[in-house]
Amino acid sequence: MHKGCEMLDVRYLERAVELARLSVEKGGGPFGCVITCGDQVLAEGVNSVTRTNDPTAHAEIVAIREACRRLGSFQLSGCIVYASCEPCPMCLGAMYWARPQAVFYASTRKEAARAGFDDQHIYDEMPLADGERTLRIRRMGVPSHDAPFDAWKKHVARLAY
Amino acid sequence: MHKGCEMLDVRYLERAVELARLSVEKGGGPFGCVITCGDQVLAEGVNSVTRTNDPTAHAEIVAIREACRRLGSFQLSGCIVYASCEPCPMCLGAMYWARPQAVFYASTRKEAARAGFDDQHIYDEMPLADGERTLRIRRMGVPSHDAPFDAWKKHVARLAY
Repeated sequence: MHKGCEMLDVRYLERAVELARLSVEKGGGPFGCVITCGDQVLAEGVNSVTRTNDPTAHAEIVAIREACRRLGSFQLSGCIVYASCEPCPMCLGAMYWARPQAVFYASTRKEAARAGFDDQHIYDEMPLADGERTLRIRRMGVPSHDAPFDAWKKHVARLAY
Repeated sequence: MHKGCEMLDVRYLERAVELARLSVEKGGGPFGCVITCGDQVLAEGVNSVTRTNDPTAHAEIVAIREACRRLGSFQLSGCIVYASCEPCPMCLGAMYWARPQAVFYASTRKEAARAGFDDQHIYDEMPLADGERTLRIRRMGVPSHDAPFDAWKKHVARLAY
């Protein structure tokens, strides 16, 4: 999958699982994440939703933010993400934006569901139209809605010169 | 859709669009978000990915984190999210976790795509199996992978007494 040592991948993944287990002891959620670049650990994260009152503070998001802070970059090019569990749609989306070299995870979303974390429900909702969602969401037209993208296109064009 | 005044909804959505337009002038991405609770604005956010080197710093995530910080809660119960553009899968996932009362947006993902923001690609990837994704992701078994969920179930059971 990537150039590197499978033994090292297993070790980092075991560390992500250990972080997840330790997180429970500290009152957090049972999820951990490690991000490496080469042979260096850039960031570790645990689910900190309830501790920090931040619904986005899943282990992967916490680790991605810290790894990017340390790299001084909004991209994780060449980095590997090790997650104790299969990412939820929010975290998977974050990985598409961060573009790491590879992602490994240990437990599956089905195992997470058996422990009470229903990521599958959110996966099921992703392809639905607004009216079919359990989340109440809808488009509302406002006259100015094109203005940000118009400004962006002019800005990008200006930068291109 | 929710108890409240459509006029106010339009005003808050126009403010989200204005934030998105102003964000471009300041070198940020063309996305803005406002979160209200009752008649109070709890948080405003703009896309700060490049400015803060944080690939998760979409306008909605920035605003959700700030609103939750102000509420001292990891849930946005009773709150309304106004986004200048249809949320990407990462931000939509965050909304499922944060559970606001409703979400309104102005531009669609198709309009975002025409401006160069290809959220649709990530939507298309969401239902795929690991081997079909453009993101390199796969499950790797480690002997300890059940330990965090086992610890969690014991922890939850202990709390229930």
